[in-house]
Amino acid sequence: MDNLKEFFSIDPGIIFLNHGSFGASPKPVFSTYQSWQARLEKQPVLFLGRELDGLLFIAREKLGEYLHASPNDLVFIPNATHGVNIIARSLNLAQGDVILTTDHEYGACEYAWEFVCNQAGVEFRRQKISLPLVSDEQIVEEFWQGVDERTRIIYLSMITSPTAIRLPIEEICARAKEFGITTVIDAAHAPGQINMDLEKLNADIVFGNCHKWMLCPKGAAFLFVRNELQNSIKPLVVSWGSHPTTETTTGSRFIDNLQWTGTRDPAASLSVPAAIEFMGEHHWDEVRIKCHDILRIAISNICDLVQMEPLYSLDSKYFSQMGIAPIPISDLIKLKSELYDQYKVEVPFIQWNGRQFVRISVQGYNSIDDLEVLIKGLSELLPKVGKE
Amino acid sequence: MDNLKEFFSIDPGIIFLNHGSFGASPKPVFSTYQSWQARLEKQPVLFLGRELDGLLFIAREKLGEYLHASPNDLVFIPNATHGVNIIARSLNLAQGDVILTTDHEYGACEYAWEFVCNQAGVEFRRQKISLPLVSDEQIVEEFWQGVDERTRIIYLSMITSPTAIRLPIEEICARAKEFGITTVIDAAHAPGQINMDLEKLNADIVFGNCHKWMLCPKGAAFLFVRNELQNSIKPLVVSWGSHPTTETTTGSRFIDNLQWTGTRDPAASLSVPAAIEFMGEHHWDEVRIKCHDILRIAISNICDLVQMEPLYSLDSKYFSQMGIAPIPISDLIKLKSELYDQYKVEVPFIQWNGRQFVRISVQGYNSIDDLEVLIKGLSELLPKVGKE
Repeated sequence: MDNLKEFFSIDPGIIFLNHGSFGASPKPVFSTYQSWQARLEKQPVLFLGRELDGLLFIAREKLGEYLHASPNDLVFIPNATHGVNIIARSLNLAQGDVILTTDHEYGACEYAWEFVCNQAGVEFRRQKISLPLVSDEQIVEEFWQGVDERTRIIYLSMITSPTAIRLPIEEICARAKEFGITTVIDAAHAPGQINMDLEKLNADIVFGNCHKWMLCPKGAAFLFVRNELQNSIKPLVVSWGSHPTTETTTGSRFIDNLQWTGTRDPAASLSVPAAIEFMGEHHWDEVRIKCHDILRIAISNICDLVQMEPLYSLDSKYFSQMGIAPIPISDLIKLKSELYDQYKVEVPFIQWNGRQFVRISVQGYNSIDDLEVLIKGLSELLPKVGKE
Repeated sequence: MDNLKEFFSIDPGIIFLNHGSFGASPKPVFSTYQSWQARLEKQPVLFLGRELDGLLFIAREKLGEYLHASPNDLVFIPNATHGVNIIARSLNLAQGDVILTTDHEYGACEYAWEFVCNQAGVEFRRQKISLPLVSDEQIVEEFWQGVDERTRIIYLSMITSPTAIRLPIEEICARAKEFGITTVIDAAHAPGQINMDLEKLNADIVFGNCHKWMLCPKGAAFLFVRNELQNSIKPLVVSWGSHPTTETTTGSRFIDNLQWTGTRDPAASLSVPAAIEFMGEHHWDEVRIKCHDILRIAISNICDLVQMEPLYSLDSKYFSQMGIAPIPISDLIKLKSELYDQYKVEVPFIQWNGRQFVRISVQGYNSIDDLEVLIKGLSELLPKVGKE
């Protein structure tokens, strides 16, 4: 797996254990990305005005195959944050309605929901999911205690951001369907890190990033909306597509409304097929298993070091290439900066519900050596770095 | 001026007379653009998480010098369409209010206003500005006939899109100020094509593209909001900046709210200083004059060819590097495709209020020869291409 490092542009002087925040794109995909930009510059009107819709359709087709979804139910967006903003403003919520979520969600997306909830008099309810995790059944039961007759939307991360947990969303989506509750899934960290099958998942709405674990350049993400709900989705950026003509329509009101948001560089979306191809060529299922294996060992070693219990069983399916290990309460700003300055380790520390974690991402360009430097750094710094 | 052609990547087999739709970026600026992207890929967390705000401030400073505005009153957005969407949703309009505009505005932006107006019971009123133009006084008087006690917003293009007219917005902004009417200026086509001085203009809100006439790569645009109004501007994409911390704030609520819209490639915005530098090095004021001169001759020749009057006096200041010439009513789809297929000329034809125009853009990479091919093409095709 070590030889994959050469495919990435990550500074060799940095031990990069934070793929989770912004991803990283391998050179062949990045090169495809910049080639699309060069092609645009050769004839901007031909490219953006006449070729783009067809090219985006091809990219949506490839993404659809990868995610098990129809290209007509997928539209490219710049990132998951755009996705939550589009959805939060599209759902016609009434005063007193409840959006139920967990206490493991991504802050920026919570802000988007709260912005809309405050205007509409809707409750954004965070249901506690206890750590350490015990079982899918316990997670589902604990979450479902938040459901009542006012619950209109269930909003969940497929893989949570602060705690890196693969939630059992399949079970929750199935139960929500029985109760007629709309499910909105934030898959920011999911595609590429786990195999996604949108058909089997059967959620109503899913948005996710291609620029994290799918290795695309920044600005590639998707919004999936189940066909029956597509007419209710309003564009965040109203543009030409809100009034398509017979010459300009893509044939779908959903795609027309959301695909064109004014002049921008569409190269990230167009590079999605190259990223899928790269993962295929390099047997990404195997890469993921190897990454998971060294991550599991690292979390286990950190737990031993700090003499604390892991947040989930290390042979569970609750994490893939991104996981958390507990650390004793420390001055996280100091810890982070000293780890970066002295050990060149880029890794995020998380403050969550009064606890602290290190959130480790392992990608194809990492090796066990990287994890060993992290552990060495933690072992030397944690005793020195006091409480905040 | 001919030697400027080598700086651009435009396909040498195409006579590109449509800079106005999407712009075109010279090679040194494009190369800076792609270098920012490479720098991002080297250490995404350092770049996007820790360096970006400072780098964007430097770019806003350079843009501010160029536009005569404080960097604190400017925020980067992807394009003017985003600008109008942000503003239309931020202004607290009440039922019965009127937004006054002209009948020369850009369709996509009108759709954004109408989307909001339909929800709020606000009238979007298009005031006729007659062609041919006579004088600034007549334009202002004709426009002002649309003002009444319900007029809350005046929305105007600095340079109109379908008709390529430099409107006398200075006079209209000054009069609006006397009447307490908020002015919103769409400068999509202005920066780079004309000298902009936001201080002198004294409009309340201005958005414009850097990727058209300022020669930036696609996705570079700005929103200017007068300091006193900044607190009323709501983010279109609610993200981290809606709840900044002492560590993450830029020091401005306006910038915090609008600058970060989730992970995306910020290279286009960061290339704005390189574009300003390129224009400076190549004496862009002179380039513009030369472009204007050959455009004036071309419009005059087309008017002679079709035996129709120009839409404005050809020694007026109503056009700069983009202008329109009238053509007899034709099948525009056929005319456009035959001109492209047979003469390799990329130029837009406009259907506007029952009339038809060719809208010609002349940029530094064009020569008088390009205009001659256009005129030859029109002279041969117009007699053959029937009415629609």
